[in-house]
Amino acid sequence: MADLKNDLFLRACKRLPVERTPIWVMRQAGRYLPEYMAVRQKADFLTMCRTPELAAEVTLQPIDLIGVDAAIIFSDILVIPEAMGMHLEMHEGKGPVFPEPIRNEADAKKLRTIDPSVDLKYVLDAVALTKRELNGRVPLIGFTGSPWTLLAYMVEGQGSKNFSKVKYLIYNDPALAHRLLDKIADAAAAYLCAKIETGVDAVQIFDTWGGLLAQDDFEEFSLRYIRKIISQVKEKNVPIIAFAKGVHYNLDRLADSGADVLGLDWTMNIGDVRKQVGHKVALQGNLDPTILYAGHEKIRHEAEKILQSFGHGSGHIFNLGHGILPDVPPENLKALVDFVKQESVIYHLK
Amino acid sequence: MADLKNDLFLRACKRLPVERTPIWVMRQAGRYLPEYMAVRQKADFLTMCRTPELAAEVTLQPIDLIGVDAAIIFSDILVIPEAMGMHLEMHEGKGPVFPEPIRNEADAKKLRTIDPSVDLKYVLDAVALTKRELNGRVPLIGFTGSPWTLLAYMVEGQGSKNFSKVKYLIYNDPALAHRLLDKIADAAAAYLCAKIETGVDAVQIFDTWGGLLAQDDFEEFSLRYIRKIISQVKEKNVPIIAFAKGVHYNLDRLADSGADVLGLDWTMNIGDVRKQVGHKVALQGNLDPTILYAGHEKIRHEAEKILQSFGHGSGHIFNLGHGILPDVPPENLKALVDFVKQESVIYHLK
Repeated sequence: MADLKNDLFLRACKRLPVERTPIWVMRQAGRYLPEYMAVRQKADFLTMCRTPELAAEVTLQPIDLIGVDAAIIFSDILVIPEAMGMHLEMHEGKGPVFPEPIRNEADAKKLRTIDPSVDLKYVLDAVALTKRELNGRVPLIGFTGSPWTLLAYMVEGQGSKNFSKVKYLIYNDPALAHRLLDKIADAAAAYLCAKIETGVDAVQIFDTWGGLLAQDDFEEFSLRYIRKIISQVKEKNVPIIAFAKGVHYNLDRLADSGADVLGLDWTMNIGDVRKQVGHKVALQGNLDPTILYAGHEKIRHEAEKILQSFGHGSGHIFNLGHGILPDVPPENLKALVDFVKQESVIYHLK
Repeated sequence: MADLKNDLFLRACKRLPVERTPIWVMRQAGRYLPEYMAVRQKADFLTMCRTPELAAEVTLQPIDLIGVDAAIIFSDILVIPEAMGMHLEMHEGKGPVFPEPIRNEADAKKLRTIDPSVDLKYVLDAVALTKRELNGRVPLIGFTGSPWTLLAYMVEGQGSKNFSKVKYLIYNDPALAHRLLDKIADAAAAYLCAKIETGVDAVQIFDTWGGLLAQDDFEEFSLRYIRKIISQVKEKNVPIIAFAKGVHYNLDRLADSGADVLGLDWTMNIGDVRKQVGHKVALQGNLDPTILYAGHEKIRHEAEKILQSFGHGSGHIFNLGHGILPDVPPENLKALVDFVKQESVIYHLK
């Protein structure tokens, strides 16, 4: 941390004292920024991911424009299945699509073990370039999808309402599902380790679709593989954030997963969660992303409620409870960030 | 209840002793049944809703074919906004659409106060016809969407991923939102009362989109109006079921809403919820609907877990945690229903 001018985020991850609560925002390098859209005019989403200069450029935008306390490398969770051999397309208005999803043993056999330094070199190059350009201003976060969330996309082939195909797989051929999850977990862990070696200061595991699973299934098909990743990444000694959406019922187990930080969606009461697991992990979150549609007064009021709910002391990283929405005015995010930076000081006075 | 041959469902709603756990399933009159699809070939969805003979026919199908312990009148939650004057279209593959959504004061002014006996006569006729054809075999449930859930559709105009327009409304013009919610609550209450007078034996309020709201917003924009409906319907003295998806954080308040039964989504642990609020309300639920993609052995295993989790005694109505999915084999639902009927007996022995 020595070479960082602002290490508030890293200290909060470790529940060390901070002068104020750090803040960053999921999808902060995204479509709500006109400066991002200007880059996006020149290159499609996947080209942006694959071009280190463009990925670095948009990664830095919210640091310069909004003033957040951490950068997160611009990329997509689906670069892992792509590196494993799946053909990935981006359909405008529909999102990412795998035209040949994984449905059976034969499909699964086609997936290869990845070498991140070769198969995902473009991400590592983007990390290295971003680190240089950040020049120690704030820490850089790397991320992966959880094995369950990646499997859901790989089996469905695209976003889905009911995720019936991946549910069919886990209930009718759990052995195949476990082999796939195991393979994805190894790939994700290798990928995170390579990013850490290239310079990221923390990593986040996104389990966007964890909440699709009932309690025991979440343990069996998601949490087990999040733990596997953590066990492989832990020795690299950077903070690990686990963000799972809709899994209020398994917070205790997530807090015991080895993660340093739990990311909370906006339906949780952060004060209650702190009482429950705050002695084990730091907490990240959890303003309802749609609050950023409101006026600045309402935004400040809701942010204050979250600061107050968490209460005094370190171990809180302010964030939204999900990614920032594309039609939010950037000045509303700026108002949130300014408010949190200023107002949170009183929660850290000795 | 005297004229009912099977009143298990109604007794369980009131936490009175039963010989076994009753079971019905949300969307049980639906696309997974070939017999339903045969009717659907002859008439589109909205025509089915508006034609009492067809609505009654599909309402009865799961009673005859699957053997569930309650019927629920075939209809749609959006018949209320339609009756209030909004033009409703059904777009194949996309679902219901309001081409002229409510966005401002002028739009809101166009909404009229409904007289269910005129504006929703076709539903009441379907209820009367179904009651005659049921001939006391099982109770009949009527339903409404919650005011918040209806408002979400009325403002968005259709299903949505982020529900940004209705969120924009409640944060930027809460006074208008409250006037609309109040008007919708009155319409929904009048509608439920009319259905009860026509013969339904219980009512369910669906708050499908309650979980979109953070904790305090749920109280302000959803629960308050669910309570308003309940206060107007309570005197009719039939069981009231409140089903809200994704609102784990507000179960206590829902249990104090005046509802007799809480419907649980599949992410809750029904045993834990019983400990928390089982002295106030009966519980309905909560098998993960995608479990019906599995083999019969897995289905029985998961159903047993829920029976066991709830434990001994009355106050449990078995159901899925959300509507049955259209691509589930009907024999899988039959296997579930048969199992629950048989296996639950031991949980009700003196």
